[in-house]
Amino acid sequence: MRFELTKEYLEKLQESIQSQNSAWIKENVLELQDVDIAVIINALDRDEAEFLFNQLDDDLQGEVLTDLDDDVRERLLKSYSSKEIAEQIENLDSDDAVDVIGELDPEQIEEVISHISDREAVEEIVDLLHYEDDTAGGLMQKEYIKAKADWPVNRCIIELRKQAEDVEKVFTIYVVDDNEVLLGFLSLKRLLFADAKTKISELYQDKNMISVKTGLDNEEVARVMEKYDLVAVPVIDLQGKLVGRITIDDVVDVIKEEADKDFQLASGLSEKVESSSNVWKISRARIPWLTIGMIGGILGAWVIVGFEGGISKVPALAFFIPLITAMGGNVGVQSSAIVVQSLARGDAQLGSLWKKLGKESMVAIVNGLLLSTIVYAITLFFGSSTLGLAVSVSLFTVTLFAAVFGTLIPLVLDRYKIDPALATGPFITTLNDVLGLFIYFTIGMLFFGI
Amino acid sequence: MRFELTKEYLEKLQESIQSQNSAWIKENVLELQDVDIAVIINALDRDEAEFLFNQLDDDLQGEVLTDLDDDVRERLLKSYSSKEIAEQIENLDSDDAVDVIGELDPEQIEEVISHISDREAVEEIVDLLHYEDDTAGGLMQKEYIKAKADWPVNRCIIELRKQAEDVEKVFTIYVVDDNEVLLGFLSLKRLLFADAKTKISELYQDKNMISVKTGLDNEEVARVMEKYDLVAVPVIDLQGKLVGRITIDDVVDVIKEEADKDFQLASGLSEKVESSSNVWKISRARIPWLTIGMIGGILGAWVIVGFEGGISKVPALAFFIPLITAMGGNVGVQSSAIVVQSLARGDAQLGSLWKKLGKESMVAIVNGLLLSTIVYAITLFFGSSTLGLAVSVSLFTVTLFAAVFGTLIPLVLDRYKIDPALATGPFITTLNDVLGLFIYFTIGMLFFGI
Repeated sequence: MRFELTKEYLEKLQESIQSQNSAWIKENVLELQDVDIAVIINALDRDEAEFLFNQLDDDLQGEVLTDLDDDVRERLLKSYSSKEIAEQIENLDSDDAVDVIGELDPEQIEEVISHISDREAVEEIVDLLHYEDDTAGGLMQKEYIKAKADWPVNRCIIELRKQAEDVEKVFTIYVVDDNEVLLGFLSLKRLLFADAKTKISELYQDKNMISVKTGLDNEEVARVMEKYDLVAVPVIDLQGKLVGRITIDDVVDVIKEEADKDFQLASGLSEKVESSSNVWKISRARIPWLTIGMIGGILGAWVIVGFEGGISKVPALAFFIPLITAMGGNVGVQSSAIVVQSLARGDAQLGSLWKKLGKESMVAIVNGLLLSTIVYAITLFFGSSTLGLAVSVSLFTVTLFAAVFGTLIPLVLDRYKIDPALATGPFITTLNDVLGLFIYFTIGMLFFGI
Repeated sequence: MRFELTKEYLEKLQESIQSQNSAWIKENVLELQDVDIAVIINALDRDEAEFLFNQLDDDLQGEVLTDLDDDVRERLLKSYSSKEIAEQIENLDSDDAVDVIGELDPEQIEEVISHISDREAVEEIVDLLHYEDDTAGGLMQKEYIKAKADWPVNRCIIELRKQAEDVEKVFTIYVVDDNEVLLGFLSLKRLLFADAKTKISELYQDKNMISVKTGLDNEEVARVMEKYDLVAVPVIDLQGKLVGRITIDDVVDVIKEEADKDFQLASGLSEKVESSSNVWKISRARIPWLTIGMIGGILGAWVIVGFEGGISKVPALAFFIPLITAMGGNVGVQSSAIVVQSLARGDAQLGSLWKKLGKESMVAIVNGLLLSTIVYAITLFFGSSTLGLAVSVSLFTVTLFAAVFGTLIPLVLDRYKIDPALATGPFITTLNDVLGLFIYFTIGMLFFGI
């Protein structure tokens, strides 16, 4: 039923591959679902993966290809000719076929297409290749069921029977006019239970019809399908003609990727990396943010140098450097995370900027007062009450500034069409470190009258 | 078609509510989809929300209730009697009905149920109330279509017609034996195109049948549906009997919530808060992590006090405190984020602990060497080459330690069934701050022979 890849299974499989034990493989691998086979191949090394992949027939190879990790697929495809690739993808859904060959270089794409015998499939693939990856057009597939409004139910069933051969999951029948303009939809359930003579135009619904245009950004598509609980959404062109449909499984991938990306940005990873990537790739993905952190640290050092005279008079001021930088960073990240999430949900346009800033400032004042008071009490153990006052007033001020910057930066980034999640990462922490140190030492100097 | 809530619309609506302009409301609100109406009501204040909600008929009230923000729904429900609530939820899908009344107190749930006239609906609701919220049982609904294996197609269509009245989206027909044990599934498409006399037992598929048990954790349900690209999954009890189904729209919500939670944990927010929550709630959600940050800052101060003698001899050591803490924090968060993501994807069980640690250490060595070299060059401007050496050797050591801790902590948390995403938040930053300072000053003392 549901397959879990275990260490034992993997060892047994690797043994069978070593000893070319096709019988074991046939019984234990080929019976699995394509996505499970893909998980297994992802976990094998290059030669083992190739051997196992070669045991699959063309159709299964195609299905497995769509589920493989990008780098594994790329490696595997290199060992096949354009003709072989054409055979593998021939029976895939159009969107999956495009996903597989989309990564090849343009000449090879042409070659692969020239080897596909089904002319209709070729046309669908060529059409889909036109659209940008991250738009509704890039997500959609050509497999859907459509009915003309003027058909009666019995003719409709005959026509649909032909169309349905290519469509794995039907969900909904889209109803179009003679110009292919989308009019509405009809559930299979409704068709199934209707009288044979009834015209489709009397059956279909147009109220609550949601469609998306080919150019819509794929995150927006995800938001629409999520909001309206859709399992499939029809895609129309500028003239309103039906050109494809997007199914929820592809959108779930978009949602996951989006969430992963935000999480990675917040954690200071600048490229998509998986724990299976190699050391160089992982290192490279981390360097940009670490460099920003380093520059922040150097700027921080520079600020402290500027106040060296004060520190040599009141060395205890140095004790609380980590407190100030840590709190500035934490408050900044918290404030920006809230803004980033409401931007991602798309419900940020209503509240005005000033209202948001006001609220964040209020929160900062509440938390700042509370923490400053506690810190004041604690610092008394470290030195004079002047020190305590200097530290707690600084902490309060830094908290307030960090909250304001944390709120503003993602909003500004969003305004300039830059992913606001960038703000939640080391960027805001670094900025607040430097700013916090400056505020801290300035206030410290004032309190000690230096 | 697709509705966007604009400022202008909201102002016009508020005016209409003030002037009790039911005609405008009827034309501009009641025609919208329930989820859009819910978005509008969420944006209104208490009295306006109540007025608008009262304009809806019972069925629409029920649908809108399921889409409202939790606190808005709770507030609205307070102004209705148990009988009125019963009428509102009577036509909802069983899972939505349970979601609405699940938040009421036990006595009121009993009262509401006693007012529902449809006995079957009552039984379904009572059954669903037994399951934990965050399990497959808590996610499932009682609306699904099932067929007995020994029915012929024509009888099946008659039976399904009855069942289908209550089921909004059919997707798949589940095939059961006489004991209600799930045998397999049958697509509506296959049924539609089959001969009237064929037995269901000859039509249904059992290969690739995926089902989940009632007790399965809802994140695991999401993982299964995502992996196998399912739009609906049947839920079975311990005896293998079919007891419900879960549809993808509910699972998309689980995926989103899970991603939001991870992002919030990584950003130091400990409770589910929305930007619409009030100042106290937001402040409270941030206090736990800020307190940890504060304790870290105080511990850091304590570490520095311990090395006060050294600092007074080489004051320049204080300059690089922010650099060390920032880099330790950043590296730690990066390392733990990678581990958290691979744990969330469920592909972490294969790679052994040592392999992971080895790889993270390699990455840390590469990045540590690179950054330490740059920092060494820069520190020469700030003082002696001994200082440069001390800072860059410390930086390298801290990077390595932070990477090891960043990798270990989420794995340890996961082992003890604590959400590993906790590690990516201020927790790891704070730990690395204190540890980093200790390493830095120890190495500094050694280099300067203090």
